Amino acid sequence: MKPYVLGIDIGGTNTVFGLVDARGAVIASGSIKTRKHSDFNAYIEELHAAAMQLIEANDAVDKVHGIGIGAPNANYFTGTIEEGVNLPWPTPLPLAKIVSEKFGIPVAVTNDANAAAIGEMTYGAARGMKDFIMITLGTGVGSGIVINGQVVYGHDGFAGELGHMIVKRNNGRLCGCGRTGCLEAYCSATGVARSAREFLEVSPLEPSLLRNIPINEITSKDVYDAAMQGDKIAKDIFEYTGTILGEAMADMMVFSSPSAFVLFGGLAKSGELLLKPLRNAMEKNMLGCFKGKAKVLLSELKEADAAVLGASALGWEAKAPDVPAGASTPVLP
Amino acid sequence: MKPYVLGIDIGGTNTVFGLVDARGAVIASGSIKTRKHSDFNAYIEELHAAAMQLIEANDAVDKVHGIGIGAPNANYFTGTIEEGVNLPWPTPLPLAKIVSEKFGIPVAVTNDANAAAIGEMTYGAARGMKDFIMITLGTGVGSGIVINGQVVYGHDGFAGELGHMIVKRNNGRLCGCGRTGCLEAYCSATGVARSAREFLEVSPLEPSLLRNIPINEITSKDVYDAAMQGDKIAKDIFEYTGTILGEAMADMMVFSSPSAFVLFGGLAKSGELLLKPLRNAMEKNMLGCFKGKAKVLLSELKEADAAVLGASALGWEAKAPDVPAGASTPVLP
Repeated sequence: MKPYVLGIDIGGTNTVFGLVDARGAVIASGSIKTRKHSDFNAYIEELHAAAMQLIEANDAVDKVHGIGIGAPNANYFTGTIEEGVNLPWPTPLPLAKIVSEKFGIPVAVTNDANAAAIGEMTYGAARGMKDFIMITLGTGVGSGIVINGQVVYGHDGFAGELGHMIVKRNNGRLCGCGRTGCLEAYCSATGVARSAREFLEVSPLEPSLLRNIPINEITSKDVYDAAMQGDKIAKDIFEYTGTILGEAMADMMVFSSPSAFVLFGGLAKSGELLLKPLRNAMEKNMLGCFKGKAKVLLSELKEADAAVLGASALGWEAKAPDVPAGASTPVLP
Repeated sequence: MKPYVLGIDIGGTNTVFGLVDARGAVIASGSIKTRKHSDFNAYIEELHAAAMQLIEANDAVDKVHGIGIGAPNANYFTGTIEEGVNLPWPTPLPLAKIVSEKFGIPVAVTNDANAAAIGEMTYGAARGMKDFIMITLGTGVGSGIVINGQVVYGHDGFAGELGHMIVKRNNGRLCGCGRTGCLEAYCSATGVARSAREFLEVSPLEPSLLRNIPINEITSKDVYDAAMQGDKIAKDIFEYTGTILGEAMADMMVFSSPSAFVLFGGLAKSGELLLKPLRNAMEKNMLGCFKGKAKVLLSELKEADAAVLGASALGWEAKAPDVPAGASTPVLP
């Protein structure tokens, strides 16, 4: 087997790529701006040129086994980026096909949270685990579910949208998906910022460091900083956020009984501020037979490498597309 | 491969067993009373004698590939009936080991809802499906989850307890599991009977056929009969029950994106009374990318055969236990 894979993480702002070996070492990496080209072909030209430069500089031409790509709304089964995603190109977009043709290398794609789960299973906190749930706490809440060693894709490739479990059935917050009460509306970074605005408005007489910041500019980082200084409202917000997430995780448990949850993303770095109420609520709401069984772990991948590592791990399972009889095998340009 | 399997369904009242061929035909079946023997060994003696009589009468000695057993709280991984179950014997009970030693045939066990899912996938409404969720609406609410053609057992064998998803976070009904607000407390046959009592007490002036029955004796069948006669309170109870189940199913969808839900058990026979509000609530609460994708099907297995067929299908995957070097191979007694 060829010794390297190329991992590509297409984010809303940056596209990061890296050459990775079988032990998960990122040999070299680079990035381009995702939004520079509104024409997808121009974007792919730049990505190809930059990645090939990296590959050539590391003497890896003809040594790349596969390319793994993590991208929002990317579907493992169809290889496309589906509709409803905040990227500058028309959708559905046949990502795997275009990249595979351009590089002459097999490509596998999946959404960013599934890529993170694969990375964690291959190189991170979930090494050796067959059943775990990855929860990414970023601008939104994403998830990658692993059962019996395999990522759950469902019948259509869209499984694992746990950020859209309904946690407030009545009078829930409006979610970006158009419904109300989703987990994501409470436990994402933006959800924490919304909680800050709510808590400050509901208790106008309670002093808080957060009142020094214009209310519409408060971020989850501001809430964290205030909580670390002992601010009561900020600590209450983490209590509220962790409790909702812990309750939801107890419900996830009855579905697939994972041996661990792995948390990733900015909010996961809040440490015990988030984890303490989360664990309390999870165990308090846990069905008897599951009590004390599921670990709550933090990602062990360096944030700078995590997206690329996760995507790259998928590159090992990329397969060349079925080539019609008589067609020539694609070659590196 | 030997041409038959023996399916055994251990219910709270009766233990039903049947000899089944590879096409899912129940060649012959029998039953014994589950509660007759408080001594488990005496129970197994009677079960063995009755089943061997059946096997001999059908010229099937040495032709049984495996035994599949469905039983409440039976764990696929450990082969035991775990604690907390309403059966007359001490737990945990090493069911697979004892039956395998008694019959000299490999045994696989699982809980009753998982057995139903396997039966439906092998012989029923889910034939050819790789991703579906079986929901059993009986005295309780059970579930068997199939992902990519495999039953989900989780890290400990207890996955798929969807009857214990929390559907009412505040002021929920007390569930048999000791928590409050579980799906089972609303959408089981006993849940429907509880709804009847609640609805009748909340609207004391509303006439209803159900008022002809002592309030503590109303069953879900009574509610069905009244609804079929146009009784408003009875119809409202089905609207309420179907809505809660449909909302919960929309949440199950974001987990594993099944292509279908298969409903089984007494309540599932209520037809459109239950299914209409269920489908409405499911689609109304569905995340956009899943709308219109999941079918809601009714079990296609005859109730009399279903439990035995489901258990028997597991018999095909039963493997002989690892035999220590030098030990003799078990033989039929």
